[in-house]
Amino acid sequence: MKQLKTPLLNLKDVHLPMKPADQVPVRAAEYRDAGLTLTAAGTIYFDKDDDADIQSKFDYVKAAGIPVIVAMPTRQVLPRVEKFVKQYDIKLAIHNHGPEDKQFPSPLDVLEAIKNMDHRIGFCIDVGHTMRAGVDPVEAIKKVGPRLYDMHIKDLADGKLKESQVAVGDGVMPVPAIFRALVDIGYKGNVDLEYEINADDPMPGVVKSFAYMRGVIAGMGLK
Amino acid sequence: MKQLKTPLLNLKDVHLPMKPADQVPVRAAEYRDAGLTLTAAGTIYFDKDDDADIQSKFDYVKAAGIPVIVAMPTRQVLPRVEKFVKQYDIKLAIHNHGPEDKQFPSPLDVLEAIKNMDHRIGFCIDVGHTMRAGVDPVEAIKKVGPRLYDMHIKDLADGKLKESQVAVGDGVMPVPAIFRALVDIGYKGNVDLEYEINADDPMPGVVKSFAYMRGVIAGMGLK
Repeated sequence: MKQLKTPLLNLKDVHLPMKPADQVPVRAAEYRDAGLTLTAAGTIYFDKDDDADIQSKFDYVKAAGIPVIVAMPTRQVLPRVEKFVKQYDIKLAIHNHGPEDKQFPSPLDVLEAIKNMDHRIGFCIDVGHTMRAGVDPVEAIKKVGPRLYDMHIKDLADGKLKESQVAVGDGVMPVPAIFRALVDIGYKGNVDLEYEINADDPMPGVVKSFAYMRGVIAGMGLK
Repeated sequence: MKQLKTPLLNLKDVHLPMKPADQVPVRAAEYRDAGLTLTAAGTIYFDKDDDADIQSKFDYVKAAGIPVIVAMPTRQVLPRVEKFVKQYDIKLAIHNHGPEDKQFPSPLDVLEAIKNMDHRIGFCIDVGHTMRAGVDPVEAIKKVGPRLYDMHIKDLADGKLKESQVAVGDGVMPVPAIFRALVDIGYKGNVDLEYEINADDPMPGVVKSFAYMRGVIAGMGLK
């Protein structure tokens, strides 16, 4: 994170375990003491239609002081999750997972499911999974607008193939148009790089992805 | 070069030795057989006011089939070099080297020296050395306009300090404004990354520099 010169981290439970519960605030403080800002937690799965399971996950995020849950709920459990969103006042950013996702392949499927729900239930658009679902990420951003609470960015050499992930800038993802759409909707959230390849040595591709995205931002005159 | 996905190479004599002369076309062909385009040779120094010395360097570039010499002539020898520019019809792109350069600290010093010379004598603006000389690289590009035949790009954390070189995008160099100026003057030449740091492991910074510049180009909608 220091090499990338960003303090902004969307972490998963692999980085901040859910148990033991009393260690969650201690571990979250360690991140903050190191200069990091915890912007979102997840992806967290909500697949049990059970208050105790859902509450334990909201308690975890609350204890960590994190304002957004990147979530993968089932449609069935969503009304129950909504109760906790209201009770805890924590945003739920539903993460679409592409064509093999039976619940929410694209943000448009999420939109349909949550349109009448509390507005703190919104979106984490994953531009890669969205593209693979045959939906234009730029259009998806414009459609979900003010309910976009987080975003996962990645790039694909082939917009249909999950296995074709490359560093951002090396594929077909329309990064400038995505950033323009974020500006147009007045997005105040974060764009989280989700770099899922080269696990043995991810930094070169991560550095390359950040450099490309910062170049796009500079080229667009955004800062 | 393949990892960077560019075939465009401005090489130095360390990459293509001047001697033995009969090997120059053979070695140049090896580069071309590998898919590379030799865009410029240099920096080549012209510091002897002597036809034989100058001719040997023009013969070298001609034998290699390279259209542009990135050159560091002394002011004294420049009129003699001009003869060979005319005779060989090879462009001479004079490379400024910053405040410690007694001949040509900035492109503006070159401009003064060559304004009445053959138009095939022009500029290789080095944006780092130009900035260190206290001249805005963007203004320099606009001033030299159609006589810009090559460009060396780099970045500096401190615009006064040669030793502060960083990957392009990590410093104070106004890369979008530089690219905009190149578009505005109708520049048809190349922008050569001159990455002079981390000699033991240059690729990470080179990759980062290319990613940033490609991001800027994408962000500006240039391609």
